[in-house]
Amino acid sequence: LLVSLHPYLLAIARASSTGATPSEEMNGTGNLMDFLDEPFPDVSTYEDFHTIDWLREKSRDTDRHRKITTKSKESYWELIKSLLDAWSGWVVMLLIGMLTGTLAGVIDLAVDWMTDLKEGVCLSAFYYSHEQCCWTSNETTFDDRDKCPQWQKWAELMTGHSEGAGAYVLNYFLYVLWALLFSFLAVSLVRVFAPYACGSGIPEIKTILSGFIIRGYLGKWTLLIKTVTLVLAVSSGLSLGKEGPLVHVACCCGNLFCSLFSKYSKNEGKRREVLSAAAAAGVSVAFGAPIGGVLFSLEEVSYYFPLKTLWRSFFAALVAAFTLRAINPFGNSRLVLFYVEYHTPWYMAELVPFILLGVFGGLWGTLFIRGNIAWCRRRKTTLLGKYPVLEVIVITGITAVLAFPNPYTRRSTSELISELFNDCGALESSQLCDYVNNPNMSRPVDDIPDRPAGPGVYSALWQLALALIFKIVITIFTFGMKIPSGLFIPSMAVGAIAGRIVGIAVEQMAYHHHDWIIFKNWCRPGADCVTPGLYAMVGAAACLGGVTRMTVSLVVIMFELTGGLEYIVPLMAAAVTSKWVADAFGKEGIYESHIQLNGYPYLDVRDEFTHRTLATDVMRPRRSEPPLAVLTQDSTTVEDVETLIKDTDYNGFPVVVSRESERLIGFVQRRELTVAIKTARQKQDGVVSSSVVYFTEDNPQVAEACDPQPLKLRRILNLSPFTVTDHTPMETVVDIFRKLGLRQCLVTRSGRLLGIITKKDVLRHMAQMMNQDPESIMFN
Amino acid sequence: LLVSLHPYLLAIARASSTGATPSEEMNGTGNLMDFLDEPFPDVSTYEDFHTIDWLREKSRDTDRHRKITTKSKESYWELIKSLLDAWSGWVVMLLIGMLTGTLAGVIDLAVDWMTDLKEGVCLSAFYYSHEQCCWTSNETTFDDRDKCPQWQKWAELMTGHSEGAGAYVLNYFLYVLWALLFSFLAVSLVRVFAPYACGSGIPEIKTILSGFIIRGYLGKWTLLIKTVTLVLAVSSGLSLGKEGPLVHVACCCGNLFCSLFSKYSKNEGKRREVLSAAAAAGVSVAFGAPIGGVLFSLEEVSYYFPLKTLWRSFFAALVAAFTLRAINPFGNSRLVLFYVEYHTPWYMAELVPFILLGVFGGLWGTLFIRGNIAWCRRRKTTLLGKYPVLEVIVITGITAVLAFPNPYTRRSTSELISELFNDCGALESSQLCDYVNNPNMSRPVDDIPDRPAGPGVYSALWQLALALIFKIVITIFTFGMKIPSGLFIPSMAVGAIAGRIVGIAVEQMAYHHHDWIIFKNWCRPGADCVTPGLYAMVGAAACLGGVTRMTVSLVVIMFELTGGLEYIVPLMAAAVTSKWVADAFGKEGIYESHIQLNGYPYLDVRDEFTHRTLATDVMRPRRSEPPLAVLTQDSTTVEDVETLIKDTDYNGFPVVVSRESERLIGFVQRRELTVAIKTARQKQDGVVSSSVVYFTEDNPQVAEACDPQPLKLRRILNLSPFTVTDHTPMETVVDIFRKLGLRQCLVTRSGRLLGIITKKDVLRHMAQMMNQDPESIMFN
Repeated sequence: LLVSLHPYLLAIARASSTGATPSEEMNGTGNLMDFLDEPFPDVSTYEDFHTIDWLREKSRDTDRHRKITTKSKESYWELIKSLLDAWSGWVVMLLIGMLTGTLAGVIDLAVDWMTDLKEGVCLSAFYYSHEQCCWTSNETTFDDRDKCPQWQKWAELMTGHSEGAGAYVLNYFLYVLWALLFSFLAVSLVRVFAPYACGSGIPEIKTILSGFIIRGYLGKWTLLIKTVTLVLAVSSGLSLGKEGPLVHVACCCGNLFCSLFSKYSKNEGKRREVLSAAAAAGVSVAFGAPIGGVLFSLEEVSYYFPLKTLWRSFFAALVAAFTLRAINPFGNSRLVLFYVEYHTPWYMAELVPFILLGVFGGLWGTLFIRGNIAWCRRRKTTLLGKYPVLEVIVITGITAVLAFPNPYTRRSTSELISELFNDCGALESSQLCDYVNNPNMSRPVDDIPDRPAGPGVYSALWQLALALIFKIVITIFTFGMKIPSGLFIPSMAVGAIAGRIVGIAVEQMAYHHHDWIIFKNWCRPGADCVTPGLYAMVGAAACLGGVTRMTVSLVVIMFELTGGLEYIVPLMAAAVTSKWVADAFGKEGIYESHIQLNGYPYLDVRDEFTHRTLATDVMRPRRSEPPLAVLTQDSTTVEDVETLIKDTDYNGFPVVVSRESERLIGFVQRRELTVAIKTARQKQDGVVSSSVVYFTEDNPQVAEACDPQPLKLRRILNLSPFTVTDHTPMETVVDIFRKLGLRQCLVTRSGRLLGIITKKDVLRHMAQMMNQDPESIMFN
Repeated sequence: LLVSLHPYLLAIARASSTGATPSEEMNGTGNLMDFLDEPFPDVSTYEDFHTIDWLREKSRDTDRHRKITTKSKESYWELIKSLLDAWSGWVVMLLIGMLTGTLAGVIDLAVDWMTDLKEGVCLSAFYYSHEQCCWTSNETTFDDRDKCPQWQKWAELMTGHSEGAGAYVLNYFLYVLWALLFSFLAVSLVRVFAPYACGSGIPEIKTILSGFIIRGYLGKWTLLIKTVTLVLAVSSGLSLGKEGPLVHVACCCGNLFCSLFSKYSKNEGKRREVLSAAAAAGVSVAFGAPIGGVLFSLEEVSYYFPLKTLWRSFFAALVAAFTLRAINPFGNSRLVLFYVEYHTPWYMAELVPFILLGVFGGLWGTLFIRGNIAWCRRRKTTLLGKYPVLEVIVITGITAVLAFPNPYTRRSTSELISELFNDCGALESSQLCDYVNNPNMSRPVDDIPDRPAGPGVYSALWQLALALIFKIVITIFTFGMKIPSGLFIPSMAVGAIAGRIVGIAVEQMAYHHHDWIIFKNWCRPGADCVTPGLYAMVGAAACLGGVTRMTVSLVVIMFELTGGLEYIVPLMAAAVTSKWVADAFGKEGIYESHIQLNGYPYLDVRDEFTHRTLATDVMRPRRSEPPLAVLTQDSTTVEDVETLIKDTDYNGFPVVVSRESERLIGFVQRRELTVAIKTARQKQDGVVSSSVVYFTEDNPQVAEACDPQPLKLRRILNLSPFTVTDHTPMETVVDIFRKLGLRQCLVTRSGRLLGIITKKDVLRHMAQMMNQDPESIMFN
């Protein structure tokens, strides 16, 4: 395989190598008569931005499998080869898991270091992050340990003063400068080397998995640039996360390893099975939640997810999580991003605030999707889209300038979430845990009773409220810029802040008014009855659910973070409420909205098509249009065919008995037809423009001896094209397209060919029926 | 709805109430012209032991939905009705969850009490189990607490002596007697009231979910009898578990609540969505593992599992688990059946014994499946099958007689598993934890270092080895008898015993040979490096995996039992090894084997069909057979149709333009045709035997005025029958049948009708290709 330096070159190189030999294709489509015909030279099966035919890919794979099984009986060497082939799926999963886990570990370490670099540097070793730098420091409290002497802020290092207005301004200035530098580097790298590396990548991956070809989107070059720029983008302090892009990175790894095995590289259907599993591995390492990753892939990303893929996804997700744990980027042997442990159960009455958080999550989801889509549409249609670098610089500048003064926005978003999720322990020194302690009380390590909030908590509440507004606004403008950006972390941050605020409010209410009827039963004085951290977690789940409309995978991810079955009910209540509320304002999650915005030909399995149209209303040609371009089985000449190919751009042509009877006998692919005629013209004697092309088994009766030699093309004829009658309801047609992954379908009435429906026609019709702009769908 | 006392009566009653009105059916199939025709009286859509047509059910539901949406704009009342309809899915889930959870709780309590009743009785209250009886006892160690004075063994109660040979024999005798009584009651109840209540029910539920009708299998009567007899069967001490039957019970609950809503009761497709979710609720309460339950339903049981069902299953599983926790049958607020907590991590080198346990699990799976299937076949074909009551009595007798002397088989199997899974704590008094303690050592509660085994451990090992052999043999003969019997628990017990034995062996090896190279790195003296309980757990997973071929759901269930992500890798290693080993001997799990044994028409999604046959090889009629029974669109008389209906038993008839052209125009259902003609004869004047039946839009040209009035039947004609060409490869046909859930498919060539392929033909062909007996497939 060629290793080229540019994705476009790569795409071109790949285009010429993914083609399957026509003999493979042909056998899959049921033609068993013409094995002796010589094979054509390689033709690439699908072009860029085209849709694959799942049924055809599947039958090609069965055919390949059949060949290997037959051969394996011939010799031991072939038997070993067939065993290797059978195991290659698991090998690919192992490799994907290992590479994804490693990359995730490297990204975590680099982000940690570079995020801290904005504030200061470690004197003992410049490549240490703040935490690693102060690791060996022997201070006891967290607060003191933060100020270990080896770690110096920039102002301290440069001027010697660590306090005072001058130092603050200098630190502020350098913080913004670093942020601008990182984001400028990120957007420049994306612009110059891999334009596909921007965004979260999940909408595109959903589209690719549903059977669309976007060459280079999962290439080596995208992998490299996305990994590097992801680190830069996250470190710059922008309101974005690494989870979505990690799924893209994992899918790039998947695609990379696919190319090692012809089983996967030459079959677009099989390749997508691997990619589904890779997506699971991506989420697995993003959160340290392997089961959640598999369910995410199943619920959110994948299109065709057979049981085999379920097992393999699980394996890949486990290997990835295991590799990440071996690298141990957080230094605590914990797999999960936000490890929490709560010591108190929750009470029935708390379901009310949890459900309110769910409502908040749904509203946030609606606001975010509407705002973000409106902004992205503006970016596409106005001058704004012409200056992506400037846009990133400006947003980074605004983010950094506004973020620095507030301690809750200055730090990285995942640290913030982690602090918000955590319950206040006895030794906690953060502002959020500044409660008034009862001096008479002995202090157990766990299970601290509810206490009145101190001044620190109140000031933290104000800062959190400001952080909430800031995050809500800035995230809407950040997602969709030309840098890698995920929205899991910012969404969770919004929810966690809101949840923590609600949690503290409920806690203080329960403390000060424990005689109220609602608190009376479960919240006696001196009891630990409200855990604000749990509210933060429920809020995070609700907001993430509102944006993405995940439910099961979301709850499972959250469950894997805490490991406690206890909290499934609150999480589920919030997630389901959030989904219901958000669905009431619009059925589509953020990924579907972006798919629609970009006009990808994605046939959503969740959209129920309930309109009363029939196949005859959708098929082409319409009444006013010229008749369907068809070939006849034994009366078209080579020249006619060439003219037809030149004049139209259809993917293929139906073949009928004759123009009078219009009875369908098969379907022929445009590419195969082109190649076949070209080859015949070059190699086969006697084939001239006036030669008759025939698709029947026997030669047509040639009227006169002087007629040129006819060209037999039955071997490229698909004798089992998919047909429906003109009276078939469109809901059934949509169902068939979805479940069988068709690319086109012919329409007949009483055996007569009437027209054709392509996936594009189906999508356009669905968009029309839902009053959307049907012309926005990308050409497939 | 009728409430009848017998499942057969119930089946008959239901048969007449599930029918949809033909106007509903008709609209779904694309005929929009004949709304004004008067509707037919109710006809039941499917007969018993027939296959449903998923596509048709789906389009009927869309139609119903469309009607409600249209109506909802008319008045507020209709709007409320439409909202209720939209929410009915969630309401059904809530009800299923609550009833399933309650039943599971009641079953748990009853089994606990009745199992202990075999040994003795509580004097303070006869309805207390041993544990509840000694609850308030103030002894400190477990051993002493077991002997609390309120609890008396039968011998002690009757003779006053609790020790000695006489007491032992009396206890032994009463133990066997109770066991025989319970099992006799169980088998008699099943025989007399609900024959469908026997077995695990999962093979049948898989078949039903794939679209087969077995009336009464999920009826109220089955629900009641299965619940009662399950308690009796488990209490009798037979080697069986309650997990599989609980799934059946949950599905019965699902079916029960379906009948409350016409949305589900009148649509076999929608009903199956509810049943899939109910199955998840069943496993959820069986193990206390809601996520595992959902994945079990997805991986093992369900056929059609859209995302909507995923969410609802999850909801139902959660509600069920939550209800069970509220009932709290184990008295410890734990949701899970076997709660364990381990304190030590596992080491890489331990993967070797884990994988060996996986191999053992695979071998056990193979042995069990082959042995059990051979025995069940013998039961079906020989005299044995004639005496089910005697068989149960004999097996119970053997089990009880052999089980009593061995303390590990005498107690209930789930208690045994629980003990084997548990790590030896400091206060543990069981024989298995009889290690030699170092007197100098201080005793922390957790984290006890490895110690040499004492005599108790060695005698326990012998007893466990005997128990292992006993369980292996007896389980093969028990599963499949005419009482409710699940195989999860016995399989897990076999694995747990084997695992614990291996675990203790490794532990002792590590203790005595800690200088060996393999132990050197991680097992210094005084360290706690081997946890035999974990081995038991891994063994249990391996054995369960070998029998059922579950992987992901199995690991998730085990993960939910321990709550520790740490142990996913050992579990996964064992589960995957076990699956590979077992698959090497035969692809089918126990459920698929039983489906095949019983000849259910189940189209397995996992079987890859790789043979090279074409649709033309499978379709009926064969060359030697008489031509296909077809109707012509305007030249068949009423008498011809009646003769055709009388002479054949096909489900429906294709309609062609004329016998000469054989061009297909549609398909008509036998039932609808029968009813239509009967109604027309009764109500429509002028319709006589010689009337022409026509399916065209316009009246046929009647030659003479004296001809009788023709009968128009276009409204019952399905104008969009599913067709494939004769050259379509069978692998594609199988795929289409599977994914679209077809019942039949017409075969054409160039628009001419050639034949028909039914689901039964497909299954028969697949069986033929795999060299199985094709005649064993049940008529559908």
